[in-house]
Amino acid sequence: MSAARLKHFGWGREGEGLSAEEEAFVLARAQARFGTELKQSTSAPPLDEIKLAAPRVTAPASLPFCTSDHYDRVAHTYGKSYPELCRGLARDYAAAPDVVAYPGDEAELIAVLDWAGGEDATMTPFGGGSSVVGGVEPKRDGHRGAVTIDLRRMDKVKELDKTSRAALIEGGTYGPALEAQLRPHGLTLRHFPQSFEFSTLGGWIATRGGGHFATLYTHIDDFVESLRTVTPRGAIESRRLPGSGAGPSPDRMMIGSEGILGVITQAWMRLQDRPTFRDGGAVRFNDFFSAARAVRAISQAGLYPSNCRILDPIEAYNTGAADGSVAIMVLAFESADHDVAPWMKRARECCADHGGMAETTGAESHREGAAGVWRNAFIRMPYAMERLILRGVINDTFETSITWDRFEGFHDAIKTATAEAILAATGRKGEVTCRFTHVYPDGPAPYFTFHALGEPGKLDAQWRAIKSAALDAVIANGGTVTHHHAVGRDHRPWYDRQRPPLFAAALRAAKKALDPQGLFNPGVLIDP
Amino acid sequence: MSAARLKHFGWGREGEGLSAEEEAFVLARAQARFGTELKQSTSAPPLDEIKLAAPRVTAPASLPFCTSDHYDRVAHTYGKSYPELCRGLARDYAAAPDVVAYPGDEAELIAVLDWAGGEDATMTPFGGGSSVVGGVEPKRDGHRGAVTIDLRRMDKVKELDKTSRAALIEGGTYGPALEAQLRPHGLTLRHFPQSFEFSTLGGWIATRGGGHFATLYTHIDDFVESLRTVTPRGAIESRRLPGSGAGPSPDRMMIGSEGILGVITQAWMRLQDRPTFRDGGAVRFNDFFSAARAVRAISQAGLYPSNCRILDPIEAYNTGAADGSVAIMVLAFESADHDVAPWMKRARECCADHGGMAETTGAESHREGAAGVWRNAFIRMPYAMERLILRGVINDTFETSITWDRFEGFHDAIKTATAEAILAATGRKGEVTCRFTHVYPDGPAPYFTFHALGEPGKLDAQWRAIKSAALDAVIANGGTVTHHHAVGRDHRPWYDRQRPPLFAAALRAAKKALDPQGLFNPGVLIDP
Repeated sequence: MSAARLKHFGWGREGEGLSAEEEAFVLARAQARFGTELKQSTSAPPLDEIKLAAPRVTAPASLPFCTSDHYDRVAHTYGKSYPELCRGLARDYAAAPDVVAYPGDEAELIAVLDWAGGEDATMTPFGGGSSVVGGVEPKRDGHRGAVTIDLRRMDKVKELDKTSRAALIEGGTYGPALEAQLRPHGLTLRHFPQSFEFSTLGGWIATRGGGHFATLYTHIDDFVESLRTVTPRGAIESRRLPGSGAGPSPDRMMIGSEGILGVITQAWMRLQDRPTFRDGGAVRFNDFFSAARAVRAISQAGLYPSNCRILDPIEAYNTGAADGSVAIMVLAFESADHDVAPWMKRARECCADHGGMAETTGAESHREGAAGVWRNAFIRMPYAMERLILRGVINDTFETSITWDRFEGFHDAIKTATAEAILAATGRKGEVTCRFTHVYPDGPAPYFTFHALGEPGKLDAQWRAIKSAALDAVIANGGTVTHHHAVGRDHRPWYDRQRPPLFAAALRAAKKALDPQGLFNPGVLIDP
Repeated sequence: MSAARLKHFGWGREGEGLSAEEEAFVLARAQARFGTELKQSTSAPPLDEIKLAAPRVTAPASLPFCTSDHYDRVAHTYGKSYPELCRGLARDYAAAPDVVAYPGDEAELIAVLDWAGGEDATMTPFGGGSSVVGGVEPKRDGHRGAVTIDLRRMDKVKELDKTSRAALIEGGTYGPALEAQLRPHGLTLRHFPQSFEFSTLGGWIATRGGGHFATLYTHIDDFVESLRTVTPRGAIESRRLPGSGAGPSPDRMMIGSEGILGVITQAWMRLQDRPTFRDGGAVRFNDFFSAARAVRAISQAGLYPSNCRILDPIEAYNTGAADGSVAIMVLAFESADHDVAPWMKRARECCADHGGMAETTGAESHREGAAGVWRNAFIRMPYAMERLILRGVINDTFETSITWDRFEGFHDAIKTATAEAILAATGRKGEVTCRFTHVYPDGPAPYFTFHALGEPGKLDAQWRAIKSAALDAVIANGGTVTHHHAVGRDHRPWYDRQRPPLFAAALRAAKKALDPQGLFNPGVLIDP
């Protein structure tokens, strides 16, 4: 890998982070929010200060792509969730894997599975490690060791079918490398989650990831044409088909399986031509619910905008997109085939019907004005958490979905429950904001952000109290515990309340058929 | 039920069938095709000529909605596939269920499951019985009896959510009753399979049915917002959500499960506003592959026409839509929200790029000209088989899908294999035609029709030889054994070759967890 290696603590690669100017901006906003100066009380754990137990299992010399080096074990202990940062700050890396394997192809992967199975070691598939839900932490769960399987060397576009617009892509391919290999052919997977730079195709599929487009083709589920997964019992490979009605979809069992059934090694993915026609801009609304009604009108009109996010007034203010008095809609259409002006015109009418006031419009407006400010903030946001936590700030996000008939009451219930939990947990008022990330004809996917000022040393427990209250409210009010961040270990108790018990029984039986020793990600989604 | 009862032999209800004029038309076409007069050599089996064994189990008086009456047992023996018609002609109704249950609600359904489980009777869920793949024939499979569960009394739209455009609908609701209950609210499920009149919501979901719209929202899979299935172990009910990334989709395990996991009792379904804007018409092409290239251009342009079928020259001739010298595209757009003229204009350009010559266009053109002729033939077609079979005609259809890169070679291979099999099986040239029913950006769903002149008494074996050769070719050339007709018993051997073996193992384990006695549709999709 020519790029710098991934950080062992925090988002992205070594040397990356907020600029001084960006950090000053978010710090000023945070200090204003809590009405107090925020002093740094701790620091990120230097690599050499982290103590690890001796590995319980070590790979044989016949597997030279496996290592038990200090950096590799530390860097594969955690994903990027808030409680994992807390444990990192506490220098708690007890969960570190014994071995990190970097197989370069399926033969090497199978050799790892065979060896780890013989050693009674659990296995955790690892893409870019950007999970924000506790999705990559290894668990021994009574077994002898823990091996993390990092797929980064399986990073190639192996075949390209320009006629059908599809490509066979290895599971360990990171977003930028994937797009770089498609770009010369004028094609794109057009899947841009916020974690795009630090996540992989296999990770997107295993977690049912969502891209940043608001409607229609944005879920990785819909892009999968066929899938190959290596399980302890062998490979499962589905046929390359545009559509099929032959029994329950084998792919849909794997999509969202979060590593409990095996390793996704490659997939034929549906691609799109690179868009050349664009239109869009920001639209201001007096309040969030008016903006939401406009979103509903657009999504039910069958217009399929590429972007149709709305930010509530405080969220718009926090990203610098507005002054805090208005809600903002970021609206855009794009096409590789035709002028999208008729589409945009009709969407603008839907906005006007609900009091929307258009700001800028035009082909480049998604890079300008409120839309452009928001877009930049969106990409840089994940770097803020690791800086603010050093000053006692608890901030996190959670996303859900809900049908339109229940949306307004749901929104208020979640905000209230979260705000009350912040006050109860920290003794101080915090902030809860909402935006939409995706919209459907039958309902939105609201995305909540909360900010609280916690007490260093207690941040983990305070975060847990707040997040628990928020998710209790989500589940009680009919939402889903996750819309596109996955379940991981952080959401598991609420997932259990959402998922039909007999589906758990069926999934447990299916896992047992594919992973009889129960070595793949034990405790994820279902109990062993 | 106020309507006439379903036929015990043939398509639809008693008293329905081709008019004398329609029958004369299809007969003339068939006689011209085979160059010989086709004389009727047998007749449909009258109900009272059919002999049934005494029922092996009978329902107790506490289940008054169960019956072992002659008509009910006969009418639930078969679906509408060609080999089932052959067996009907041979007066072979040995497969008849012992009992037909008509539960009116879930409590009654559960009473049936409890009683049948205690009697060691297999259970076959039955919607409208329109399966063309051997999907509703009961099998005892070593168990003591066979009970068919006909859901027709569970036929209500129970709740309607106009804001989210969704409705809670019972599984036994037939297409017309479903739409009739939605129409007063200006809403539609907009799911119109060819079997619309004689099939149910639960049947569409259990078989992964496709509607008659060509692109985007046409598969029942995408309309399911939440699902409730009663299994022998209890009910599985998913949450009503516009979207979710919480683990593998519980609904997708049930969608396409063809009755092996339980009975789909109700579902929240995504609805649409009734369309008011329409544009469309027929387009002529010199050959089928030119038409296919235009379809590819339209589907990859992101235009989403409601109809974009193409008929090859002979298929267009057979339905009366053209003179046999040109391929026909039936192209249409519709919307409840906006004028679709810009969409139609761009699609027409795509056609012209590939040599398409527009016939009529306009809002009502889908009811006129070649498009209108085809539309009418499409709806009446299923009634022809039961008449032609009396004169020794073997005709059937099969549908598949394939990626664009392989389409032309695939098409030729399937046609050739089927035509050769007809000649080998019957000693006489037959006819194989193709149309597209659905299209995707990555490939079409070709739908093949074949006509052969067989020998009365040997029709079943001759049909089997032809269909087997056709499906051998489909599987060998990379297609799917079924795109929207389901697997049933007729497609099972080829499904086994298509489906990953380890997925069968996982599905078998999941079934065991939900149906430990193995009573639901044994032998469908997987072996017990």
